[in-house]
Amino acid sequence: MSVICLSGGVGGSRFANGLQSLLPSGDLRVIVNTGDDFQLHGLYICPDIDSVLYSLAAVSDAERGWGRANETWQCLDVLSDLGQPDWFRLGDKDLAIHIVRTNQLRLGMSLKEVIDNFCVRLGVPTSIIPMTEDAVMTFLHTDSGLMDFQEFFVKRRCQPTVQGVFYKNIENADLHVKAFEAMQDSSLEAIFIAPSNPFLSIDPILSLPGMRELLSKRRVPCVAISPLVGGRAVKGPLGEMLDSLKGSRLPNVFVEHYSGLIDGLILDESDVEYASSIKIPTHFCSTLMRDQEAKTGLALSSMQFASRLHV
Amino acid sequence: MSVICLSGGVGGSRFANGLQSLLPSGDLRVIVNTGDDFQLHGLYICPDIDSVLYSLAAVSDAERGWGRANETWQCLDVLSDLGQPDWFRLGDKDLAIHIVRTNQLRLGMSLKEVIDNFCVRLGVPTSIIPMTEDAVMTFLHTDSGLMDFQEFFVKRRCQPTVQGVFYKNIENADLHVKAFEAMQDSSLEAIFIAPSNPFLSIDPILSLPGMRELLSKRRVPCVAISPLVGGRAVKGPLGEMLDSLKGSRLPNVFVEHYSGLIDGLILDESDVEYASSIKIPTHFCSTLMRDQEAKTGLALSSMQFASRLHV
Repeated sequence: MSVICLSGGVGGSRFANGLQSLLPSGDLRVIVNTGDDFQLHGLYICPDIDSVLYSLAAVSDAERGWGRANETWQCLDVLSDLGQPDWFRLGDKDLAIHIVRTNQLRLGMSLKEVIDNFCVRLGVPTSIIPMTEDAVMTFLHTDSGLMDFQEFFVKRRCQPTVQGVFYKNIENADLHVKAFEAMQDSSLEAIFIAPSNPFLSIDPILSLPGMRELLSKRRVPCVAISPLVGGRAVKGPLGEMLDSLKGSRLPNVFVEHYSGLIDGLILDESDVEYASSIKIPTHFCSTLMRDQEAKTGLALSSMQFASRLHV
Repeated sequence: MSVICLSGGVGGSRFANGLQSLLPSGDLRVIVNTGDDFQLHGLYICPDIDSVLYSLAAVSDAERGWGRANETWQCLDVLSDLGQPDWFRLGDKDLAIHIVRTNQLRLGMSLKEVIDNFCVRLGVPTSIIPMTEDAVMTFLHTDSGLMDFQEFFVKRRCQPTVQGVFYKNIENADLHVKAFEAMQDSSLEAIFIAPSNPFLSIDPILSLPGMRELLSKRRVPCVAISPLVGGRAVKGPLGEMLDSLKGSRLPNVFVEHYSGLIDGLILDESDVEYASSIKIPTHFCSTLMRDQEAKTGLALSSMQFASRLHV
């Protein structure tokens, strides 16, 4: 059997961890957004892939929500002394991943091969699949002008109001062949859209040529987990983005946004008041993933919910 | 006025520090060996230049003799976890220099420009001049076969017996234009050959086309400081290399080795017994540079000795 999870960073990586803890080794495939990937100091950085990698390897920092546990910032301090940009907080441990990836990509390895090696080395039994090997870059139209994801998210701390999002070069990018194969796998049992930001993390994956069609022709249930709890994002700018882009934070926004692509929606139990207004099968449970038990619990609820759905 | 110092790593960097502490800001030019430069993890590493930079910026680790003070090794630990070579001990702080240099070289800056920026940022008033901008690589013929400098020095801890040394591509490399200009400078007062390994640190500089001729036509005194104390190298494989390559560790080895290029030799006071056997002007003083006072003291003795010499 196999299970697919479409994922961004923090929330998606925690949900993927929960799924991995439940599934037999090797059965999970996580297709990860690469629209936030960028280069800094000549290093090739993949924030969402690394969040998933660290979460699945159980080396994430639980409090910060990004990067590695027991991290230090000695290199960053010197980069700053040298007049280099220090707004993106590269930890000393985290740096090793970027250095090795940059070197191996330059030597001709694919991003998937690089990540596979990391998974072997860090004991991760899951296939982490970059959505594409091609360069795609998320840009945002905001009330402070056009900016790339890192400038919006890290440098400007999500302050500008987002008026639109686009994924540069997406029309020329190919869905990763491993993602295509995973979607076609005859042993596939369920597809999950992790509780990640739809505009910044999930839509880049769905916007790759052919991906929406693949998902709309699915023969197994697809379940989205809402990233909102009581109308608020656990982390990040989703609430404000829903206000400006959709004019609503109500759960039906996700139903409409993923229309034709999902068979069920999981909402936090605090949103149970909206139950009657939602037009597709819905399951309510705690969607906060503060600890391992909560991650596994949400994954289990999601698996059980999916198994009850009909495509 | 200006002063030139030809330098390798540890000993040379300490001597350069002593000279810098005595001279008016900007008067010292250190021409540094680049034959040990190499790439690791795709990063461009210049061990001797960095030793000189760290020493002149007063951020060197005094005990270890290389790298930075208050260093940590978090990134190296993860590189090791990822199956990457970890025999070259890249510290977290040290990494920043390699990352920035690699990036700036790729963006088209010269090594000299990169180092100049580092000097500005770290408050170093001295011009650190790479011996060349071209790729030159020190190789050693040993009883364990041919190997490059880093393999011999770091990976094999200087264990193989050295039978010969050569500098790959030296015949096609150009002496750095800034080194050439420094050697021709009408305000030049003295040239020092730092207490560095002649075969591994100084000869690469002297072997650049035209450098021996420039030095032999000097109009100012050139003084070499012996890197031996009581027939032993303070650090590194020089003693054993002298045995195998020259058959002697006596001070006259340096007189012959630098024949026509130096006007005087500084020896450690513990070698005073050899005074009568040496055919050129010699000065005896403490050449160990354990602390700042000793570095400044040796530099002062060297400057005073040079001022008494006739070319």
